[in-house]
Amino acid sequence: MKLLVTGGAGYVGSVCAARLVESGHEVVVLDDLSTGHADAVPDGVRLVEAGIDEAIGEVLAEGFDGVLHFAAKSLVGESMQDPAKYWHGNVVTSLRLLDAMRGHGTPRLVFSSTAATYGEPERVPIAETAPTRPTNTYGATKLAIDHAITSYAAAHGLAAVSLRYFNVAGAYGRFGERHGTETHLIPLVLQVALGQRERIQVYGEDWPTEDGTCVRDYIHVADLADAHLLALEHAAAGEHRIYNLGNGLGFSVKQVVDACREVTGHPIPAAVAPRRAGDPAVLVASSEKARTELGWKPERVDLTGIVRDAWEFTRSRQGA
Amino acid sequence: MKLLVTGGAGYVGSVCAARLVESGHEVVVLDDLSTGHADAVPDGVRLVEAGIDEAIGEVLAEGFDGVLHFAAKSLVGESMQDPAKYWHGNVVTSLRLLDAMRGHGTPRLVFSSTAATYGEPERVPIAETAPTRPTNTYGATKLAIDHAITSYAAAHGLAAVSLRYFNVAGAYGRFGERHGTETHLIPLVLQVALGQRERIQVYGEDWPTEDGTCVRDYIHVADLADAHLLALEHAAAGEHRIYNLGNGLGFSVKQVVDACREVTGHPIPAAVAPRRAGDPAVLVASSEKARTELGWKPERVDLTGIVRDAWEFTRSRQGA
Repeated sequence: MKLLVTGGAGYVGSVCAARLVESGHEVVVLDDLSTGHADAVPDGVRLVEAGIDEAIGEVLAEGFDGVLHFAAKSLVGESMQDPAKYWHGNVVTSLRLLDAMRGHGTPRLVFSSTAATYGEPERVPIAETAPTRPTNTYGATKLAIDHAITSYAAAHGLAAVSLRYFNVAGAYGRFGERHGTETHLIPLVLQVALGQRERIQVYGEDWPTEDGTCVRDYIHVADLADAHLLALEHAAAGEHRIYNLGNGLGFSVKQVVDACREVTGHPIPAAVAPRRAGDPAVLVASSEKARTELGWKPERVDLTGIVRDAWEFTRSRQGA
Repeated sequence: MKLLVTGGAGYVGSVCAARLVESGHEVVVLDDLSTGHADAVPDGVRLVEAGIDEAIGEVLAEGFDGVLHFAAKSLVGESMQDPAKYWHGNVVTSLRLLDAMRGHGTPRLVFSSTAATYGEPERVPIAETAPTRPTNTYGATKLAIDHAITSYAAAHGLAAVSLRYFNVAGAYGRFGERHGTETHLIPLVLQVALGQRERIQVYGEDWPTEDGTCVRDYIHVADLADAHLLALEHAAAGEHRIYNLGNGLGFSVKQVVDACREVTGHPIPAAVAPRRAGDPAVLVASSEKARTELGWKPERVDLTGIVRDAWEFTRSRQGA
């Protein structure tokens, strides 16, 4: 298939692009490099350095079999401070993508949704039937896009899949996590191990969890990429399917810090800070539906292994 | 207060504008007349005949104490056929309004949300804490706007109230329901009584309800307008409050047709048609929160009385 990957110069987008190329697909990346990196685009992949708003019509006019849509604003804290940036940058831009796909007859869409659409869950693990009550603007914008996709699929025959994932971690060869503003736990902890950061902030030790720190469901980025390939195969015209993806296990912030201590051999000092607005206590996914319907099975579920891949990537970047 | 009413030439907007004027407020109506009527704008109210997209910045630059936002695309069936019209016409346009209000420091917003944000309810009556799972695009776009308002209120100190209402009915003096494309039950039934329509279509007699027809919670438009005035008074900076409004009683399609037969003396033939996509079986609101927090009490809850007001308005328009 000839596939367009929006945000394909970012962390998850670049790993997916690499896996798509390995699977024999022709891939074009559309990325404005506002947060992505040109050198993260896999070899043999054409990079169109532009935003969706500027270029999507022209690019899709070439003819594509599908779009994998990763491009997004994705900082939860920023989304609470500057909601307009998220409503426009995520929702309005995605509507432009949907309209352009419709105009050019692009048949398939795999959308990078998020577990943040659910908000504070009533029960864990979270199934796709759970109520969607986002507690932050980032999650609310992704939910609006999901609803828009549902309506375009039903009205115009789009074959669409949304994947809602939890904390993505690890690395895949030379493709890994390097954000200008780093907000993800594992890279932040590894920055302490590298001596780039004095200590790790733990946002709240008084959450209703076993050790008092937030629990998240870390999924290895390569497992996540596999799910995107399966989603592309299983997408059916006129349907919008939604799947949660997670490794099925929750790890607390303290467990993550301990795993990083083990992998890096660094003591990693930690300091407790107040809870952040919009953070749910526990986010753990039920991936039953993805396992059953897509045949997906995460294979890299060991926390130490996930941290080790991230650490190897981080150290290789230090040498770069 | 000096108040802007978007969509103030429409059914609910014009009744609210009339009640606001009666309460001593200065009112400006912004309406592009795509579905509204210039002669529905109350006396003493300035009509700016333009869309939000074109004119909102210029209008708000005058300085307003608040906006009552009714302007919307609101045909459920059309929203399923042409979702782009609803995502752009409702969501993108409302984002423009929010950005303009922020830019001009307009402090208060009362938004005309909808019970359609809830979709098929798990239990009735529906409280504001119910999950929001819209089953049609119209409801999904209104939900996205509600989420956007929540984020702007928290980030920028907007004082906002969303009112989610169910079937609005009745009339208020010379202000009533007259849609180009009529989709609401009571006006459609009254068209049969006037001889403008041969029979009324009943969409499904096999719903899981007492008499097999859909049950809705009809609220008198004057009671609804009162709730908007109370919402305006109770709006608090930095908060987005959401209230369901209904008369607390559900009436089935059959009961409505019977009430229309009683009021008009016309036999009103009915024909059963298949269910419509996106219609929930029962929508009845719990208005406990609005009663407790706003002190709102619907006063026109008798179905025959509601139909009588609508019938008087409809007959007066026939003479016009």
